Amino acid sequence: MYNYQLLIEYDGTNFVGWQIQRNGPSIQGSIQSALKKYFKKKILINGAGRTDSGVHALKQSANFHINDKIINKVKFINSINFFLKKKLISIVDLKKRNIKFHARYSAKKRIYKYIIFNRVGVLSINKNKGWLVKKKLDIELMKKGANLLLGTKDFSTFRSSSCNAKSPIKTIEKSKVLKIKDKIYLTFESKSFLQQQVRSMVGCLKYLGEKKLSLKDFKEIIRSRNRSKCAPLAPPEGLFLYEVKY
Amino acid sequence: MYNYQLLIEYDGTNFVGWQIQRNGPSIQGSIQSALKKYFKKKILINGAGRTDSGVHALKQSANFHINDKIINKVKFINSINFFLKKKLISIVDLKKRNIKFHARYSAKKRIYKYIIFNRVGVLSINKNKGWLVKKKLDIELMKKGANLLLGTKDFSTFRSSSCNAKSPIKTIEKSKVLKIKDKIYLTFESKSFLQQQVRSMVGCLKYLGEKKLSLKDFKEIIRSRNRSKCAPLAPPEGLFLYEVKY
Repeated sequence: MYNYQLLIEYDGTNFVGWQIQRNGPSIQGSIQSALKKYFKKKILINGAGRTDSGVHALKQSANFHINDKIINKVKFINSINFFLKKKLISIVDLKKRNIKFHARYSAKKRIYKYIIFNRVGVLSINKNKGWLVKKKLDIELMKKGANLLLGTKDFSTFRSSSCNAKSPIKTIEKSKVLKIKDKIYLTFESKSFLQQQVRSMVGCLKYLGEKKLSLKDFKEIIRSRNRSKCAPLAPPEGLFLYEVKY
Repeated sequence: MYNYQLLIEYDGTNFVGWQIQRNGPSIQGSIQSALKKYFKKKILINGAGRTDSGVHALKQSANFHINDKIINKVKFINSINFFLKKKLISIVDLKKRNIKFHARYSAKKRIYKYIIFNRVGVLSINKNKGWLVKKKLDIELMKKGANLLLGTKDFSTFRSSSCNAKSPIKTIEKSKVLKIKDKIYLTFESKSFLQQQVRSMVGCLKYLGEKKLSLKDFKEIIRSRNRSKCAPLAPPEGLFLYEVKY
């Protein structure tokens, strides 16, 4: 028995999300179909992060077990990508892993990036790959707000009502806002996140940038552990699962 | 009479190129149609660079003359972008210019970037926004090759047979190769370029990276001023008109 890790890039626009669902095509389902064509049997893959519909990934990670050794990595990747053709999903790497490796449970760090385009002009080259915010945002306030999210706390404010994590306590190791020309990059790193946590935090940081919230308000919103105090969710198309570290 | 400069972003995938042609939709034609809807009369725009079909732009520049003063810049941009809706073209800025300003003839510098993805996995997030080269390229050789393109010379080797520039002599002020993870960024700056010059140069630099050419071969190819010695053109989808300076 062998255990393999897949590194996967995708444009989440036309998918219901990572996870298999009844209402449309999923990333997981598409990859499992491609693996079935290759191995001539059903293969289950474990993904590191269940990205929502519209959310993208540069290096999503998944693993699967198989009795046959994969002899030629490049040939395998080319074949799977051939079966995935026309879908905007691409296997970018394959790694042989220890039998106990689990893409979800073995993860030590997940890195998400969110991109805001702070400009008047609608998105063309980056359509569906960012959040267009026309009102000029106050970057210094957003940076200060991002700092308030660092550390170990109860993130109930930023937790989807359908989240089934055992505890709302998470540790944010990195929370950074960087502006380059008209793009604002928000980076978050944590061992794991609550459901919709990143989009909830970005929604609040955008409210801060628009001065709909003060830093004092934001501190209280974090402390409240009250979902109803959270700003509206940032849209999925600006979110990228950047990397998963083990 | 007023003279306005438009700054334009576009995904060139589904266009015949910048210039109006009979065989399909052009960027210039699409913008002129939108301007006609706004001003209720025909407007001609002068573009700084005639990008080919499939070539993208982050800040293409164009100008037009009009008798009416544009009072509200944001409203104007929003209206034109509304008329351009569904086409992946976006006006990102508008500037009032001196009456003599001409987007093409007043340009002091054009900056093009070319992106190569040097990896096995096909493109998904960046589909049609880069050139996938699966064979590992030798970056040091490409950097040395890029240096050979610097300066004032006869670039006939890199000139399309349909190019109608008066002289094949151009001055390349910047020619740089930078690798970040699996992406190779090639940047070229010049007052102006010959038709298909950038894609021709990139084609040769890729041949160098693949060791299909030596540096000595490349020197001779440049010196030959012979189009038939040039490597195949790099595909248009990796090319971005990055900025035009005045």
